[in-house]
Amino acid sequence: MFKNEYSSKLLSGAVESLSTLPGVGRKSALRLALHLLEEPTINVEKFAKTIVDFRNNIKFCPQCNMLSDDGICPFCNDSKRDHTIVCVVESHSDVLSIENTGQYKGLYHVLGGIISPIDGVGPADLKIKELAERVASGLVSEVILALSTSMEGETTSYFISRQLKPYNVKLSTIARGVGFGDDLEYTDELTLGRSITNRQPFIF
Amino acid sequence: MFKNEYSSKLLSGAVESLSTLPGVGRKSALRLALHLLEEPTINVEKFAKTIVDFRNNIKFCPQCNMLSDDGICPFCNDSKRDHTIVCVVESHSDVLSIENTGQYKGLYHVLGGIISPIDGVGPADLKIKELAERVASGLVSEVILALSTSMEGETTSYFISRQLKPYNVKLSTIARGVGFGDDLEYTDELTLGRSITNRQPFIF
Repeated sequence: MFKNEYSSKLLSGAVESLSTLPGVGRKSALRLALHLLEEPTINVEKFAKTIVDFRNNIKFCPQCNMLSDDGICPFCNDSKRDHTIVCVVESHSDVLSIENTGQYKGLYHVLGGIISPIDGVGPADLKIKELAERVASGLVSEVILALSTSMEGETTSYFISRQLKPYNVKLSTIARGVGFGDDLEYTDELTLGRSITNRQPFIF
Repeated sequence: MFKNEYSSKLLSGAVESLSTLPGVGRKSALRLALHLLEEPTINVEKFAKTIVDFRNNIKFCPQCNMLSDDGICPFCNDSKRDHTIVCVVESHSDVLSIENTGQYKGLYHVLGGIISPIDGVGPADLKIKELAERVASGLVSEVILALSTSMEGETTSYFISRQLKPYNVKLSTIARGVGFGDDLEYTDELTLGRSITNRQPFIF
C-alpha cells in the first residue's frame, strides 16, 4: 500500500478535515471531498467563506444568549412575544426545536450546557447567574425549565430552582408523558408511570 | 414565525451552505453549524482553508486522470506496479475502493463518468481518447473494464472495446457473481445465473 492511502496529500487533508464533523466518518468524508471536486472553485470558496463568516461574526444575545447577528436577538426584540415567560434550555438547537412547534410565544434563556461534574461543567460555566439577574429585574413572572431528564439535567433544574427561590417567580417544567403515536408497549416504565400520575382531564 | 427561521442570517447562511453537501439535510446541517460554533475560530478557519486548498490545487494525473498533488500520480509513478495492465474505472473513488482490496497491482484509468445520453454525457466528455492513446503506445498488454453493469456502463464498455479493437490488447472485465456472505435466496437472478455460467474449478 501507499504511504498515503488517498494518493494525494490534498485529498487526504480534505478527508481528514471533513471527518472531524460530527456523524461524518472517513467514507462519507471522502464522498464529500469528491463532491466538492465536481463543484466550481468559486462555489467551494463561497461555501468556505460562509462557514468562516458564520463562526467569526456570530453574536450571542446579551439577554438570552441565543445566536444573533448583532446584539439583541430577534426573540428578545419581538414586542409581540410574551416577555414575562422565560423558557430555560440547554442549547441553541433546543430553541429552534421549540420554535418549530409554533406553540410557544414567550422568551428563552440558553444555558449553554448543563451541570456535569464528570465533564468539568459547573454552574459558573453556564448562564445561570444571568438567568437569576433576569428574574431579579422583576419583569419575569414564569420560568419554564425545559432541560433533559438525565441526572445532569435534573441537577441543573434543581440548582436553578434554588437560585430563583428568593424571587417571586412561578417555576414550571415541560410535561413528560407518552409521545403522540408512541406504543404503550414500547414506552419506558418511568415515562409511562409519570404519564399516569400526571393524567389530564379528558375533554369530550 | 420569524421571517428568518434560524433567528440569525449568519446561521441560516451556514445551514444553507452545509446542506448543499450530498446526504446532508437541513437538520444535519444545523447540527454541523452548531458543532462548528463550539470549535475555536482558528480550527474553523483551518477547516475552510484545507477544503479550498484541496479544491484549488488538486491536479489530475496526465496519464490516468487520478487525483494527484502535482503532475504524475503515485500509482503511475510507482515502478513496483505492473505498468502493462490498466484497470478502467468510472470515478476516482472506484480507484480507492479497488486499492483498499490490496489485490491489484496494475495501473488505472479514470474515465470521469460513463456514457449517458440522458445526462448529456458523450464519449468526448470522458477520457476515452486518452485511454486509446495509452493503448496505442504499445506498452499496455491488458485492459480491465471495471464499469457498472447498468445500461450506461455496458454501453461505455462496448464503446471502449470498439475503440481498442485496432490494437493488440487483451480486454477483460471484473468477475460478476454472488458476493461473499450473500444468500443465494436473496441474490438477483441475473447475478445468480451469471455465477453459474461462469463457474470456477473448485480447489480442494
